[in-house]
Amino acid sequence: MQFGILGSGSWATALAKILTDNNNKINWWIRNTGTITQILQRRHNPHYLSSAYFNTSLLTLQNDIAEVIDASDVLVIAIPSAFVESAFENLPADSFEGKKVISAIKGILPSCNQLLNDYMHDRFKVEIAAYFTVLGPCHAEEVASEKLSYLTFSGVDEDMTKRIGAHFHTEYLNTVVNHDVIGVQYAAVLKNIYALGAGIAHGLEYGDNFLSVYIANAADEMVSFLKKVVGNEVCNQVNYASSVYLGDLLVTCYSLYSRNRTFGNMLGKGYSVRSAQLELNMVAEGYNASKCMFKTNQSVGANMPIAKTIYQILWEHVPAEEGFRRIEEILL
Amino acid sequence: MQFGILGSGSWATALAKILTDNNNKINWWIRNTGTITQILQRRHNPHYLSSAYFNTSLLTLQNDIAEVIDASDVLVIAIPSAFVESAFENLPADSFEGKKVISAIKGILPSCNQLLNDYMHDRFKVEIAAYFTVLGPCHAEEVASEKLSYLTFSGVDEDMTKRIGAHFHTEYLNTVVNHDVIGVQYAAVLKNIYALGAGIAHGLEYGDNFLSVYIANAADEMVSFLKKVVGNEVCNQVNYASSVYLGDLLVTCYSLYSRNRTFGNMLGKGYSVRSAQLELNMVAEGYNASKCMFKTNQSVGANMPIAKTIYQILWEHVPAEEGFRRIEEILL
Repeated sequence: MQFGILGSGSWATALAKILTDNNNKINWWIRNTGTITQILQRRHNPHYLSSAYFNTSLLTLQNDIAEVIDASDVLVIAIPSAFVESAFENLPADSFEGKKVISAIKGILPSCNQLLNDYMHDRFKVEIAAYFTVLGPCHAEEVASEKLSYLTFSGVDEDMTKRIGAHFHTEYLNTVVNHDVIGVQYAAVLKNIYALGAGIAHGLEYGDNFLSVYIANAADEMVSFLKKVVGNEVCNQVNYASSVYLGDLLVTCYSLYSRNRTFGNMLGKGYSVRSAQLELNMVAEGYNASKCMFKTNQSVGANMPIAKTIYQILWEHVPAEEGFRRIEEILL
Repeated sequence: MQFGILGSGSWATALAKILTDNNNKINWWIRNTGTITQILQRRHNPHYLSSAYFNTSLLTLQNDIAEVIDASDVLVIAIPSAFVESAFENLPADSFEGKKVISAIKGILPSCNQLLNDYMHDRFKVEIAAYFTVLGPCHAEEVASEKLSYLTFSGVDEDMTKRIGAHFHTEYLNTVVNHDVIGVQYAAVLKNIYALGAGIAHGLEYGDNFLSVYIANAADEMVSFLKKVVGNEVCNQVNYASSVYLGDLLVTCYSLYSRNRTFGNMLGKGYSVRSAQLELNMVAEGYNASKCMFKTNQSVGANMPIAKTIYQILWEHVPAEEGFRRIEEILL
């Protein structure tokens, strides 16, 4: 398998490290030629995860995305979801013909409100059998420092999912295989919404007792959505108290350093959405995700009072304090 | 309902605060007469939760346990589980006749390996219908500072459980009602074992990614035990992703200040069990609990590789590092 990595942020860099630590040669698309030169000269990405060093003899770096795709069998897409469409805009529709795609994206494409598999199908005719995800509780920084982490590979083709996962299995990285390629993507989106909410709660000065109750109930709400969206056959095979569902929710909600939590914290302290964005100079993933999931759930119809309230705080001017008073009432 | 509280530690003091903040008169058994004098003079318990102040006109303090029981309809037992038997040793067998008992104990009685309801039945013929529990993620310190918390009241008599819970519902305390009076007690015991394990993992320098996977899998293992021990009828009515199960596990595992976590951390750093006990001058609840649950599960027969390995680290000289290498292998 010839792997190609698309993207050069911290998570793309972590995946490049994992694959090359495992002696896989990789093609790596990096838009900025300066970054390419720096990686080859200094053996690390100076902008992200700079403590991870590479065996550069395993790297083929390219700023032409079409060439990286052409030269690879398996493409790991690790571009922030909001930039996927622009990164792919000049590619012909048959670019991914015969290729396998692994999504490392934690998010819905905001402009079209689609999961990446739907977008890749509509735009490039990538079938679900050729589509896989790599997700799980994985701070990139802990991969860089080689702390043991777990990644879950999901796909409908079990044998191929296992074969792909095996390329990522290293001393510091355990791999898990799962069938629920749709559900895991929604879980990765939902966790950011709940983490943003955890930040709001913290900003409103709720304590640890409340936070634990909030997160337990968020886990329950997440599973109720996932069961509804994937149907009985898939969800009966799935263990929702495993790393890619509950584990990822926990690490995201409890991380003090996540952007979602920081952003939420400012809202809880009384900043408006606009001023929090200006102050932090970024958009937390949970912000767009809350709107995407609100729309998606209009057809799914799961009971999601927590996610809905966070959406209303972020998009419909419900004051954070009032929103959380509503959430207080429904927690068990 | 005339409430009596037995015990004067931080959790007993928090429950006394909640009941009196709600204008309930309480009888309160406190062994030490000096503490009684101090509470009446200074309006707070100087030894535990000293920031909680009382309306002393609602308190009847007594160092004679039999008189407190006699004068009360509902007895809240908030004595550490290891000291229950000695506190009750001189009481006649009919002491609790006609009384209701609420257990606020998080643990199995270590000498007899019994839940409190079994002990109260054998020793005082307290029937399960007269037995209730108050449990949940509740750092006493957050009750003292009136941060919103959730307590779950469990009992087989639903109406009475609701009536009892209503006496504890305050502005800073939401109450939840549940039927699973056996399962919640085991959950409260198991969480201490898993929190001790989280401390070991931290001492062994595992990171946040691993911790989240460990806790998610611990939640799964806990639920598999609970389902087996209470049977289908009860467990089908129960939401295991609620505060008294998952919430309490989370707050205990993620709390940096819990004794279980501190104790486990020392073991992970290479202290022996004996030297950690000497150094900390205390026994973490999870230490005895791991043995009690190991014995209990010999008849229940749930698949509990995490709890079993922690038991083996604590009691059978399995090195922490080796034990966690085994745990690594089974996490999903």
